[in-house]
Amino acid sequence: MRARDLAAAFPSVALDSPALDAARLLAEQKLPGVLVVDESGAPHAVLPASRLVQLLVPAYVVEDPALAAVVDERHADRLCRALAGRSVADCLPRERQEPPIAEADDTALEVAALMARERSPLVVVVQREQHSSRTLGVITASYLLDRLLKVT
Amino acid sequence: MRARDLAAAFPSVALDSPALDAARLLAEQKLPGVLVVDESGAPHAVLPASRLVQLLVPAYVVEDPALAAVVDERHADRLCRALAGRSVADCLPRERQEPPIAEADDTALEVAALMARERSPLVVVVQREQHSSRTLGVITASYLLDRLLKVT
Repeated sequence: MRARDLAAAFPSVALDSPALDAARLLAEQKLPGVLVVDESGAPHAVLPASRLVQLLVPAYVVEDPALAAVVDERHADRLCRALAGRSVADCLPRERQEPPIAEADDTALEVAALMARERSPLVVVVQREQHSSRTLGVITASYLLDRLLKVT
Repeated sequence: MRARDLAAAFPSVALDSPALDAARLLAEQKLPGVLVVDESGAPHAVLPASRLVQLLVPAYVVEDPALAAVVDERHADRLCRALAGRSVADCLPRERQEPPIAEADDTALEVAALMARERSPLVVVVQREQHSSRTLGVITASYLLDRLLKVT
């Protein structure tokens, strides 16, 4: 069982995609995060849904959480406008979460060891080519568990 | 929009459930984590799928990742046996991840602020009662985005 056989398609967005498109993708597919790829299609970062929620909360509420209770409901309902006009790149945290990268030929145990070391819910599988690397897909922790449970 | 209206059912396991049952639940439902509840049904922790993967990797591989490549495939396929006989409580990390707790009456913005502060992919909604608290459900970051996008 090699990383290439475990890799599954996973929704990704480009750095210059609108942030609202990323939010809709996360919402519709009920995903905890989405893979962000650069201009060449190589994995660049993971954008967690919780990061987008974080951007929706006005700064004065983050500074003083007690204010959250007194903001009126109609205002709260318009929070999503905070994402309008922003790109995915604008939304990434300064300390970018680079997803762990496995090579196509890595074994299931190498993938598991990588996931364990990085405490990551997913790894990205790439095929190295001469001057670049092509993304084959993603292995989530739950899928790796699934495959390991099925063979035992 | 209040936390009670946003709370959705979410799979949970008891502290004394077999770890393999939790692994199967995560695998079958493709979940990044599962809620762990204590004897009274109150939220106790989140058990991430990546933690179970971590437990499957033999300690000598975590210490020396280069060994992952040389463990033979047949051995790797039996990794899941490492969970047999262990309870969910045995699998929780020492630094237990306590899920952020929202009250049933909290507004959507209070929930968003809590999620933002804790950088958590989910919050648990509880109804406080005289001597205990009852778990109403869970709000994921992607579901909160979904609800906020639909009202804008």
